[in-house]
Amino acid sequence: MTMNTINIGLLGLGTVGSGLVNILQDPQPRLAARQLRITRIAVRTVTPERQAQYPGIALTTDSQSIVTDPKINVVVEAIGGTTKAKELIKTALTFGKHVVTANKDLIATDGIELSQIAATHHVGLYYEAAVMGAIPVLRTLRNAYAGDPISRITGIANGTSNFILTQMIAHGSSYDDALALAQRKGFAEANPANDVEGLDATYKLLILTRFAFGMNPSMDDVDIQGITTLQPQDFVTASIWGYAIKPLAVSELTPDGLCLRVAPHLVPLGHPLAAVRDENNAVLIDSQNVKRLSMVGPGAGSLPTANSIVADLLDLADDIHYGNTPERFVDTDTPAIVADSAHRVAPRFVSITGTGFTREQLRALGITGRVQRIRGRTTVLTGPVADTDVQRWHSQLAAAGVGLIHVLPVLQG
Amino acid sequence: MTMNTINIGLLGLGTVGSGLVNILQDPQPRLAARQLRITRIAVRTVTPERQAQYPGIALTTDSQSIVTDPKINVVVEAIGGTTKAKELIKTALTFGKHVVTANKDLIATDGIELSQIAATHHVGLYYEAAVMGAIPVLRTLRNAYAGDPISRITGIANGTSNFILTQMIAHGSSYDDALALAQRKGFAEANPANDVEGLDATYKLLILTRFAFGMNPSMDDVDIQGITTLQPQDFVTASIWGYAIKPLAVSELTPDGLCLRVAPHLVPLGHPLAAVRDENNAVLIDSQNVKRLSMVGPGAGSLPTANSIVADLLDLADDIHYGNTPERFVDTDTPAIVADSAHRVAPRFVSITGTGFTREQLRALGITGRVQRIRGRTTVLTGPVADTDVQRWHSQLAAAGVGLIHVLPVLQG
Ligand SMILES: NC(=O)c1ccc[n+]([C@@H]2O[C@H](COP(=O)([O-])OP(=O)(O)OC[C@H]3O[C@@H](n4cnc5c(N)ncnc54)[C@H](OP(=O)(O)O)[C@@H]3O)[C@@H](O)[C@H]2O)c1
Ligand SMILES: NC(=O)c1ccc[n+]([C@@H]2O[C@H](COP(=O)([O-])OP(=O)(O)OC[C@H]3O[C@@H](n4cnc5c(N)ncnc54)[C@H](OP(=O)(O)O)[C@@H]3O)[C@@H](O)[C@H]2O)c1
Repeated sequence: MTMNTINIGLLGLGTVGSGLVNILQDPQPRLAARQLRITRIAVRTVTPERQAQYPGIALTTDSQSIVTDPKINVVVEAIGGTTKAKELIKTALTFGKHVVTANKDLIATDGIELSQIAATHHVGLYYEAAVMGAIPVLRTLRNAYAGDPISRITGIANGTSNFILTQMIAHGSSYDDALALAQRKGFAEANPANDVEGLDATYKLLILTRFAFGMNPSMDDVDIQGITTLQPQDFVTASIWGYAIKPLAVSELTPDGLCLRVAPHLVPLGHPLAAVRDENNAVLIDSQNVKRLSMVGPGAGSLPTANSIVADLLDLADDIHYGNTPERFVDTDTPAIVADSAHRVAPRFVSITGTGFTREQLRALGITGRVQRIRGRTTVLTGPVADTDVQRWHSQLAAAGVGLIHVLPVLQG
Repeated sequence: MTMNTINIGLLGLGTVGSGLVNILQDPQPRLAARQLRITRIAVRTVTPERQAQYPGIALTTDSQSIVTDPKINVVVEAIGGTTKAKELIKTALTFGKHVVTANKDLIATDGIELSQIAATHHVGLYYEAAVMGAIPVLRTLRNAYAGDPISRITGIANGTSNFILTQMIAHGSSYDDALALAQRKGFAEANPANDVEGLDATYKLLILTRFAFGMNPSMDDVDIQGITTLQPQDFVTASIWGYAIKPLAVSELTPDGLCLRVAPHLVPLGHPLAAVRDENNAVLIDSQNVKRLSMVGPGAGSLPTANSIVADLLDLADDIHYGNTPERFVDTDTPAIVADSAHRVAPRFVSITGTGFTREQLRALGITGRVQRIRGRTTVLTGPVADTDVQRWHSQLAAAGVGLIHVLPVLQG
């Protein structure tokens, strides 16, 4: 079939936007056949030098003119942030344009609203690049799991955190040194809070949960714990007990409802996620028919992320060609049923400042299990314990003036 | 959108066919919405008892009547073999029916011819289940790599071989004991030749090569080596040198052309494929933009394989609904350029019967590197050596009356 040119308006020419321009300006044969052409790009600053680098593409600071341009078929949003990006995407959809975005923050919070606007206007809204960069996890969940009930999604969803913990495991680095190295290598931003405090992974977990379980929980439903309290002793103690510590995002369907957690977890050393290193992301899908499928790949970066935008564009290309309404990326009309914290049970790794605690003192606080004392701290590996008990420990220990450093969950299965 | 029922005619009700019936007879909500209904099934033997297990579905021994039935939209072929299956698929396509098959042998040998017939009749021919069971590798190659040049596909494509080698690595089992266990567990057939001699993996490699490189090599272009010569000493020696031995299928694009190899390879212990155990399959895709993506999952089995058939059916469902011609699964008009064996270079692991060889005698034969002598054999780990040299070793050592057990390639990168 011969294809008409598909005109793309690109919003943003940073890491992701420039990756897309790279891939499309000298396309591989199979891609060239789809006639995807970027005609206009919105940026904050246009200079003659910058414009000269993009012959045949008009740079503008007027993003509004792109999302309303009748000649543009698809808008790719790669500016980030939620307010302006949302406004632009809404306008584009309302003007009958398909939209592709890499904006996880926006899709996590307002994705349902935007997808309803897309449906109303018979256009597609795709965002494979927003979750785990190059890993085609959303499309796999959509295409391969319609007939296969999923029980759990377990992911390493934040590359910065994984890079930092890999440094701490492999080289015994301190948290601060590992973070500084991640920043020098360009894996962590100047303000790394979103990454290291678990928000970025939480956005991705909310989107994954919609695709895996057809339910739409909110940020408040997720138990979020960052990686900032980890110290080299944690990795030493964990490895003595046969565990790595990995930054996981877990969405599990229990008989009591969804259990959503973003936290550094203890992961048994033979487990497939224990071997996922550096800035890589990974996802493990547990289900009834397939049992377990895992995917590992780069979770960010210019070309890996842009490659997933290209996959979205190709998915739209056929529908644009035939004049069909693209399939909704995900349907999530079922309200989320979230498990009560008394039912969220896992073994725990409890780190306390000081080595003077006896087993009896710990037992009096309700903390029992294997004990290690090294370099000024006591660590206990407990049996299965509910989140409510962990909350109780926090308040009891605080009341007793004891320094509770953190309580990490242990991944089961 | 409301969907019309899609009527499926199923050929075969063995491991794969019955898995499909299982998934479709009590469908998950998202699948139920697509109204996929198996109306007729062809088997070799119909008895009243067998028919009674499938209320609402007509069992027949007349497969021809299914592929010509005007009420059937899609034919799923799950009988296996090449002659009869090919005839039935051709008839189905000619009668304007979409076809989904799990038949790797047939698609590897006659896939191009069948896909041309499908195109002529404006129907789809999909076979995700034929390659690596539940792993959605074909659709990922099609959807996510159109704009990303691939340099190498490296797979563990045969679950039986991987199970056997895992037993030999983990428990020091002999080849025969490991094979017998695989047979008892239902992972290996009574006649395991296709699996252990590398043919099954070769079929899959040929199909993967079409998707990854758009080229269509033949069986003769693949250097095929089975796992039957492996012995416990190999695993001991390999592990001393820091390697596992895994059954790999590798398709690599070199400046000299494609290099296709199915063989047990030495794989560095930290490599992601070294950790893929038991009957699992795995694929590693190396490319310019994404760099490296890996997927691991069950490569066979009733429900995992049937799940991939369901993904094919869903991919067709939209096109059937809209009356569109489904996209061709793969386009392979470029003839295969295959690298000359003098250019296929890799380090080798050479096992020779007897421990009496001196370094000088080995050097005289052109075999140099690290040497281990254990339990009646000499093993050499060489530097990069061309396939032509390996062929020369085979003839020289045979002429000298020396027992060359095998020469295994070492995976690079
Ligand atoms: N970086 C990654 O690896 C990655 C991975 C997955 C998803 N994402 C997501 O992709 C999105 C973009 O990330 P990025 O890393 O590419 O960001 P970036 O490098 O900071 O680039 C942002 C781009 O947007 C432009 N821009 C910002 N505000 C604008 C406005 N109001 N009007 C017009 N242009 C505006 C900037 O213009 P100037 O160039 O003129 O400043 C810049 O070109 C974010 O949502 C991010 O979460 C990123
Ligand atoms: N098994 C796996 O895990 C797996 C994985 C991937 C791909 N595959 C592929 O899937 C295909 C089917 O494999 P399978 O393991 O399901 O085979 P199977 O268990 O041997 O089942 C074959 C089925 O086909 C029927 N059959 C055979 N010849 C027939 C004919 N001429 N007319 C009508 N029915 C006929 C048999 O009928 P009766 O029941 O009456 O004998 C049986 O139901 C093969 O191409 C295989 O390579 C299998």
